[in-house]
Amino acid sequence: MAIRCGKMKSPSLEATLKSRKKVKSILNADESIIGQTLLVCGWVRTVRDQKSFAFIELTDGSSFANFQIIAEPSMIERLSTGAAIAVQGEIVKSPGGKQKYEMQAKELRLLGTSPSDYPLQKKRHSFDFLRTIAHLRPRTNTQGAVARVRSRLAYATHRFFQERGFFYLQSSIITGNDCEGAGEMFQVTTLNLDNPPKTEEGTLDTSKDFFSKPTFLTVSGQLNAEAYASALSDVYTFGPTFRAENSHTSRHLAEFWMIEPELAFADLPMIADLAEDYLKALITDVLENCAEDLAFFNQFIEKGLLSRLTHVQNSPFVRMTYTEAIAILEKSGRSFEYPIKWGADLQSEHERYLSEEHCKGPLILTDYPKEIKAFYMRDNDDGKTVAALDVLVPRVGEIIGGSQREERHDRLKEKIVSHDLPLEEYQWYLDLRKYGSVPHGGFGLGFERLVQFITGIENIRDAIAFPRVPGNCSF
Amino acid sequence: MAIRCGKMKSPSLEATLKSRKKVKSILNADESIIGQTLLVCGWVRTVRDQKSFAFIELTDGSSFANFQIIAEPSMIERLSTGAAIAVQGEIVKSPGGKQKYEMQAKELRLLGTSPSDYPLQKKRHSFDFLRTIAHLRPRTNTQGAVARVRSRLAYATHRFFQERGFFYLQSSIITGNDCEGAGEMFQVTTLNLDNPPKTEEGTLDTSKDFFSKPTFLTVSGQLNAEAYASALSDVYTFGPTFRAENSHTSRHLAEFWMIEPELAFADLPMIADLAEDYLKALITDVLENCAEDLAFFNQFIEKGLLSRLTHVQNSPFVRMTYTEAIAILEKSGRSFEYPIKWGADLQSEHERYLSEEHCKGPLILTDYPKEIKAFYMRDNDDGKTVAALDVLVPRVGEIIGGSQREERHDRLKEKIVSHDLPLEEYQWYLDLRKYGSVPHGGFGLGFERLVQFITGIENIRDAIAFPRVPGNCSF
Repeated sequence: MAIRCGKMKSPSLEATLKSRKKVKSILNADESIIGQTLLVCGWVRTVRDQKSFAFIELTDGSSFANFQIIAEPSMIERLSTGAAIAVQGEIVKSPGGKQKYEMQAKELRLLGTSPSDYPLQKKRHSFDFLRTIAHLRPRTNTQGAVARVRSRLAYATHRFFQERGFFYLQSSIITGNDCEGAGEMFQVTTLNLDNPPKTEEGTLDTSKDFFSKPTFLTVSGQLNAEAYASALSDVYTFGPTFRAENSHTSRHLAEFWMIEPELAFADLPMIADLAEDYLKALITDVLENCAEDLAFFNQFIEKGLLSRLTHVQNSPFVRMTYTEAIAILEKSGRSFEYPIKWGADLQSEHERYLSEEHCKGPLILTDYPKEIKAFYMRDNDDGKTVAALDVLVPRVGEIIGGSQREERHDRLKEKIVSHDLPLEEYQWYLDLRKYGSVPHGGFGLGFERLVQFITGIENIRDAIAFPRVPGNCSF
Repeated sequence: MAIRCGKMKSPSLEATLKSRKKVKSILNADESIIGQTLLVCGWVRTVRDQKSFAFIELTDGSSFANFQIIAEPSMIERLSTGAAIAVQGEIVKSPGGKQKYEMQAKELRLLGTSPSDYPLQKKRHSFDFLRTIAHLRPRTNTQGAVARVRSRLAYATHRFFQERGFFYLQSSIITGNDCEGAGEMFQVTTLNLDNPPKTEEGTLDTSKDFFSKPTFLTVSGQLNAEAYASALSDVYTFGPTFRAENSHTSRHLAEFWMIEPELAFADLPMIADLAEDYLKALITDVLENCAEDLAFFNQFIEKGLLSRLTHVQNSPFVRMTYTEAIAILEKSGRSFEYPIKWGADLQSEHERYLSEEHCKGPLILTDYPKEIKAFYMRDNDDGKTVAALDVLVPRVGEIIGGSQREERHDRLKEKIVSHDLPLEEYQWYLDLRKYGSVPHGGFGLGFERLVQFITGIENIRDAIAFPRVPGNCSF
């Protein structure tokens, strides 16, 4: 489909592609770039014919900003929104002032046309519609910006932990443990399910399965991380996790990514400090490195996003126990949909009241009733609470959950039993408490919730490239 | 189990943990550290009682080197290999010269004992045995070093691509596509497999499954990456991938991590250049940042490792077509186990001959017969070959495989049909060629093979924390 308009100096495109400059590097260059003849490649956002010349707005995804190209009308004959082109031309100062430089095209080559049924014509599309074309939506302003910010947040995460001496652990995805303590799991199998092998009792004979037993997709890398923290001191995981919950909300995905640091020789206040430092470092990083994308979100997705982020960045995170929080909620005079009393889990409305109205900023709640928390959390001396923490931020509510882990062998064993979990599955986990046990703990952060927090994106399905939700596993 | 030996200055451990210094930071400090009183925490590697004083070798996993502590005999009463301790003491110059500094203990606290059945007593253990205690093996020299190098390689990967303007794409793990073009897949389900719903034909009724259709674990993020490269230009994935192959070799895992960069506006030579730059950058990075760990591997795992790595680092990667390689193999006079002729896939023995004997260094083979390569690779004009590449390195053989992708819509459609793949599953993939198609391509690197290449580790099961192989999904 590629045709040549004008003439490329080099005989083949292949010989010139390598010299291509990205839009971002041109727009960020100093003025010595003026007068240079360069090659840019990208996709046409808009093309306007002004009779004696034409304007092309080009994107190559490297930056939020498009790049303006001034072309001869003959060059744009078959160009339309979505078409891919390579353009050689001279960089000139942009008279408009909207951007620093633009290009006077000398030669333009159409690499790939874009027929008139291209779904992303220049108009606003609903996010619901865009999800049905998730393979094309990164070409939109919003999803391009989400992808760039998400990539930067991932990189900032690695930088943050690596610079503090944490080691990255890729914890296992397929697990033989069907009770990691958080929600419904997906089963993984290679058996022929149309005609599966059966035991004498008529149930599935999983001894014939790939791993010779039932296996599942992990819900958390934490238990793996504890094993590595018990050797390397400080580690973090960053990998996909899964929940087979039939939730059709804007806050749930069946497949999502989690970051789970785990620290040896650490108590709950140290874990809380790390969580605060980490969130602040992420905000600082994206404010510096994704300024254009965030300005777009601030204007079109969530008014006030930038002030919300800088507020969190500059606020000390208040520390408060769950018990104190309950007293505040009880005294608030507010009538909540879910009445609150000591022992109940906090709902989103409670978390947001505490964060948005009472503290007017981020806070870290600690020491929750043990009945509502996982078996591995460390018992406090009061006999009623465990050394858990949740980080609550305005607008989003809970963004991080963590705890100090029960490092006392016999206590942990009791807790496994009292939670009706099978002891034999946890022998290796108990070993970590038998040999050289240390105070340790960590937290988990759902990466897509973080993307929502940073971008203001309302629906979590728009915070990941190809969302997996009940009834939908396309692309 | 924790007892106190001597007296800690602070009343509680919790109050002091935060001031803990890691061994690596002490050993790398300048001499102003001498005379300071510091707290170190870690695990006892060895303890030796010399009557008037005692030596403790401590590790906290932050570095390969242990830290030597001189203690009073009374302090070590219940210490044994594997025990966890916190020690406060004065940093002094080490007289031995084996390391720069050591500590004169003032107070020592036993955090967690290590009973005499601790499996990692001071003796060599076989890697086979250590795999059965994968939760404890990161405490060994070898696995601690593997974990640190692996973490660094992951970080170096992110740095390399991010600094070149690539965006990180987390491609999807669960896929509805059962034919991504590479090997057997694991099925993912939430159906009750003991009593599954059936269709009228008696087969599994996957319309009742979580995603309302059959779903699988991904074998590659490439197709997702192509969608994002068609919007953001340059992207890379780094995530887990799966093969349900019943392979019991030292080179295969059922679950492994892959790095897959995908470049828009790129042809095969550009992809080859990127692969060469990337491998060299990784070697440079670990030689600088994991010197102690690599020295250990060089001494105990693979003699000559360091010279092999520096050789690859300093060699230009030879480019050669598959057809040229076949001619060389035919002329070699060598009798191979698998006879070679044009059209056949290269075996490890051929790859190693080309790399180790003919080129005496790394090489990149290109333009393979289309019959032995995947459907998405770009047809060359000769009608016989495709724009594929493999990177071969001494000792390991193939470490990277890649290609330029078929960007011509009608050609790709023909190839999908001729490979007997279901067209309807690939409509979205064809869309990438319908709207603004561009020359593009990329490569895939198996991360555990990279770890083997960098560390000299023989068995791939020792290059990942918790290996998943047929019949084994422990921890």
